[in-house]
Amino acid sequence: MSDRRVLANAVRALAMDAVEAANNGHPGMPMGMADIAEVLWNDFYSHSPNQPKWFNRDRFLLSNGHGSMLQYALLHLSGYDLSINDLKQFRELHSKTPGHPEYNETPGVETTTGPLGQGFANAVGFALAEKTLAGHYNRPGHDIVDHHTFVFLGDGCMMEGVSHEAASLAGTWKLGKLVAIYDDNGISIDGEVHGWFTDDTPKRFEAYGWKVIRDVDGHNPEAIKAALAEAVSGGDQPVLICAKTIIGFGAPHKQGKEESHGSPLGKAEIAAARDELDWRHAPFEIPQEIYAGWDARKAGDERVAKWETAFAAYAQAFPELAAELQQRLSGELPADWSEKSAAYIRQIQAAGGDVATRKASQQAIGAFAPLLPSLFGGSADLAPSNLTLWKGSKSVTGPDGNYAHYGVREFGMSAIANGIALHGGFIPYDATFLVFSDYARNAVRMSALIPAQVIHVYTHDSIGLGADGPTHQPIEHIPSLRYIPGNHVWRPCDDVESAVSWQQAIERKGKPSCLIFSRQNLKHQHRSDEQLAQIKQGGYVLSDPADGQFKAILLATGSEVELAMEASRALADAGVPVRVVSLPCAEVFDAQPLEYREAVLPGWCRARVAVEAALADYWRKYVGLDGEVIGMHSFGASAPGDVLLEHFGFTVPKVVDAVKRVIG
Amino acid sequence: MSDRRVLANAVRALAMDAVEAANNGHPGMPMGMADIAEVLWNDFYSHSPNQPKWFNRDRFLLSNGHGSMLQYALLHLSGYDLSINDLKQFRELHSKTPGHPEYNETPGVETTTGPLGQGFANAVGFALAEKTLAGHYNRPGHDIVDHHTFVFLGDGCMMEGVSHEAASLAGTWKLGKLVAIYDDNGISIDGEVHGWFTDDTPKRFEAYGWKVIRDVDGHNPEAIKAALAEAVSGGDQPVLICAKTIIGFGAPHKQGKEESHGSPLGKAEIAAARDELDWRHAPFEIPQEIYAGWDARKAGDERVAKWETAFAAYAQAFPELAAELQQRLSGELPADWSEKSAAYIRQIQAAGGDVATRKASQQAIGAFAPLLPSLFGGSADLAPSNLTLWKGSKSVTGPDGNYAHYGVREFGMSAIANGIALHGGFIPYDATFLVFSDYARNAVRMSALIPAQVIHVYTHDSIGLGADGPTHQPIEHIPSLRYIPGNHVWRPCDDVESAVSWQQAIERKGKPSCLIFSRQNLKHQHRSDEQLAQIKQGGYVLSDPADGQFKAILLATGSEVELAMEASRALADAGVPVRVVSLPCAEVFDAQPLEYREAVLPGWCRARVAVEAALADYWRKYVGLDGEVIGMHSFGASAPGDVLLEHFGFTVPKVVDAVKRVIG
Repeated sequence: MSDRRVLANAVRALAMDAVEAANNGHPGMPMGMADIAEVLWNDFYSHSPNQPKWFNRDRFLLSNGHGSMLQYALLHLSGYDLSINDLKQFRELHSKTPGHPEYNETPGVETTTGPLGQGFANAVGFALAEKTLAGHYNRPGHDIVDHHTFVFLGDGCMMEGVSHEAASLAGTWKLGKLVAIYDDNGISIDGEVHGWFTDDTPKRFEAYGWKVIRDVDGHNPEAIKAALAEAVSGGDQPVLICAKTIIGFGAPHKQGKEESHGSPLGKAEIAAARDELDWRHAPFEIPQEIYAGWDARKAGDERVAKWETAFAAYAQAFPELAAELQQRLSGELPADWSEKSAAYIRQIQAAGGDVATRKASQQAIGAFAPLLPSLFGGSADLAPSNLTLWKGSKSVTGPDGNYAHYGVREFGMSAIANGIALHGGFIPYDATFLVFSDYARNAVRMSALIPAQVIHVYTHDSIGLGADGPTHQPIEHIPSLRYIPGNHVWRPCDDVESAVSWQQAIERKGKPSCLIFSRQNLKHQHRSDEQLAQIKQGGYVLSDPADGQFKAILLATGSEVELAMEASRALADAGVPVRVVSLPCAEVFDAQPLEYREAVLPGWCRARVAVEAALADYWRKYVGLDGEVIGMHSFGASAPGDVLLEHFGFTVPKVVDAVKRVIG
Repeated sequence: MSDRRVLANAVRALAMDAVEAANNGHPGMPMGMADIAEVLWNDFYSHSPNQPKWFNRDRFLLSNGHGSMLQYALLHLSGYDLSINDLKQFRELHSKTPGHPEYNETPGVETTTGPLGQGFANAVGFALAEKTLAGHYNRPGHDIVDHHTFVFLGDGCMMEGVSHEAASLAGTWKLGKLVAIYDDNGISIDGEVHGWFTDDTPKRFEAYGWKVIRDVDGHNPEAIKAALAEAVSGGDQPVLICAKTIIGFGAPHKQGKEESHGSPLGKAEIAAARDELDWRHAPFEIPQEIYAGWDARKAGDERVAKWETAFAAYAQAFPELAAELQQRLSGELPADWSEKSAAYIRQIQAAGGDVATRKASQQAIGAFAPLLPSLFGGSADLAPSNLTLWKGSKSVTGPDGNYAHYGVREFGMSAIANGIALHGGFIPYDATFLVFSDYARNAVRMSALIPAQVIHVYTHDSIGLGADGPTHQPIEHIPSLRYIPGNHVWRPCDDVESAVSWQQAIERKGKPSCLIFSRQNLKHQHRSDEQLAQIKQGGYVLSDPADGQFKAILLATGSEVELAMEASRALADAGVPVRVVSLPCAEVFDAQPLEYREAVLPGWCRARVAVEAALADYWRKYVGLDGEVIGMHSFGASAPGDVLLEHFGFTVPKVVDAVKRVIG
């Protein structure tokens, strides 16, 4: 048996033993991909276990994340801060080795994977980030941004639609430093894939403009090495290595079968696998010489030192570029951000006009982007509708772009944006119509779960968009996005709140926001300095009776705030003084101290009416059983927006009537 | 100018004039695809305007649904019940010509389209339905099921990931009677597509096993006719015709440009187009000879008559098959359904045991499927986990299957299932893990919007699934699915409610349901006959103190019902009598008469605690501001399921404490 096979067998043993100890998990993929991983990590992968966040490392992503024990074994063996005891805690509460790889839980894990296909799309984002940063900052003789992105993916990833979207873009963008290794083991959970997966995958990827290295024996280290050497030899095509492997390799009775995929092998089969692999060590025992064969710490330290020297020379030659790059990589905002963004918001409050909030969003981008080289835009083929371009936007098809025309690929877009954010050096925003956030739904969830600072811009936010009809009119989307844990959803009511939503999303380091904008024009609202300052608390009193004595509270967001304001004036005329609360971000408001929340929504006042052109039930958390909600209870319809708003009850008389009912 | 061109120009004129009248809409696609549509409809499409629901008609779907005026023009010109006045009402409230084609709104519209790529996936479902019915029912000399599915799609559809999933399956399933016509006009909303779409589409589709007819001039009727003739000439490969077209063909200054895509052309350009096309008629005026050239009514009547004769012969030769097919096509359930399904449910109540509700679901499928030849199953590569197979399941890769192994393609699966349901003859169910309903999210929405009777089975419904961790643990999904208008979401608490949920979903003619099941075992609950009968009302009193006097109400669903029951016993011991309400389907409960709802949740009792291992806020609609919710407020974690349920507070003491707090 070759030395290489012995090194790989250490991965196999750890995988089968950890899964057995946890009594669940996925041994098949790690055992199948161990030989490939061994060659990649020991001969190609440029990283540093002692400095897992070293900027110029290669990135390694496991899109088939159920094989997490492969990654944990690799990290452990090569010297990361992940002990054998950590591996023994596989899949236990608070361990560093959760069921699927999780960003922030384990050093060396670059992204959270498990939802199939998205790790691959993340990798496209990483590679685009690298290419774009290199285009911005490298100078002749100073390739200070220069690393590969390696991603493993399996049959499941290949079947998912997001693989199409991401691969297509990678080809168009000529991401030559992206290397994807396809674990072609012919098995998925339902069994042998030929009953449901008959694609000619190499041909498919060639159709996307990829270079494909076919028919690599995934258990032959020399063949793997030759394929990887070719993959990293340069050229501007992303590379797919199609590796034939045997799932569960080494488990004599279960290899090549679905049985090895997602369950412990069992004691008998593990014993048989130890014989088959000639692995004579107890569970979780790795001989020192095998650790030595894997240890990447010294080489990693040397790589970092070498790069730091190179960077010092670069900084000497190009001090401004180096400083800007360091600023971006720090993840901190520029020193003048705070002051300049606040000044812009004050200016909009003073000058403000009645514009669609999508237009106000574009104006905010135009004001903030020059302050933030890290801001990276894009839209899923709706730039003229989402209004996501600003005058400094440059397509990434050029050498140093800051804007991705993602095409009609919402899911790929958001998963790629997650990758761009995780790479470092960027605050990406993406965009589509709010209703099509559905297409990207799990990537938006992943922004919050990972978490990653992606700003999702969603325009055309209600039936107010008009005649495109119910397929294009979001109803349930605003509350459904609010229900994603950790997500911040802003729905501004005017130009000023729009600018604040952008400011707050930009300041939300490492975490995502959804910014929801109208197609139609919305009225600019007057605010005192105090009110202006309170927007960032997510909810605030926009209007009170002059004497402060109100009988009811109107809560609203977005386009319904002006309706609430109109209704409050009509109610005042009718002798019913009401308070109007604007609630642009419920999650931020809910996180305020009780005292503040109570000041805005005092408990004594149960006469509350919420108004939002979205599914009504969400608002029961604020109006309770005693209040009312003017909201949607069905899909929309095709007609002009103003006709629809009236048809579905978003009118002053309806709001007035509701208030009169709740005050009894 | 050829006669054909003149016929096509009638479509162009109607499209540009209707968009102009509506002052919004999409003239470019109808003008670009008019020549193709003219040849298809006049020379190939087998339909009957007077009988738009004739079973053996060819199906025509517009996946690029923004080009709705193309379809409306075709329907109008060929003689459907869609008048010129209907066209003048394009995009107006309550018209038969909404912004995007909507099923049930317009005769001859087979599905609702607009969300890109899904019409194409629907078409794959239609073609699979046809193939499968043909396999079941046709006999030598009796091809009574024999029709094509034609679908138009554009660049946007091609970019969407769902096109990958659906096309891959169509190739694997050998859907030789599916003909897709790709409107390759090189333009999308951001402009010329080469900056974001560089796929070699013919090669890509060949990789899926499709027959591709390349480089067809979409403005040359002879070339189009030859391509279509080849496409329908037989063979078991689905066919893609790649047609080069000019978007906005005929508008001299805007054709070939994005400007013609999504806005009215404007008066001047329309006048210029009239010149260019030599179209000398006023808006909405079509000469009689052009109507005559399009009129398909007589030919349609003849087709129907011929098929009815053939069907009569078939019914004579195979009376049982014919009766079964007619039963299926009627959409009504078999006569014995009501009695036998009720008997099964009574039997489960009597015999019941503690099983995972996913297992109870499988048992219900096994009991109901033999009664329902129309039941058509499937899962996205999770059959052994979703438990969607029963002993009569046969793969559609065979000649007469009733089960689709969809592979890891959730979005494609659900969009295909929508198509199967719309075709007629089927009640499809599909399945994945609840968390991955995200991937299919917009297709699930479309099930409700169209509406189509698809039963979406979602297992592994909470953190109770255990160590797969937060990527696999749904949190926001249950409330988010409930918020889709018209969707019914069942989350049964035991074997009995599981069987009822299936029964109710099957009886919900023409409308969808989501059935949400646990991975872990759940306790069987005792019920009186009255309680058993009340399950179908969506919510009912599962347990009351012996004297009927309760101080608080516990509401729960699914796995949390047994926790609520345990807590109620602990509370009784502590001298706090409570009612337990099981609420397996909130939407059905909310639709009950006020009297019934008030009997279950009396208004006098504000001491309410809801328990559900999903995002908490949803429950405020039942517990108001005075109650409490034991629910989730964050993502889950990786650990065994019982550890997680305890960690996140789903324990008897926590429920007891909450009840004590709310009764004050």
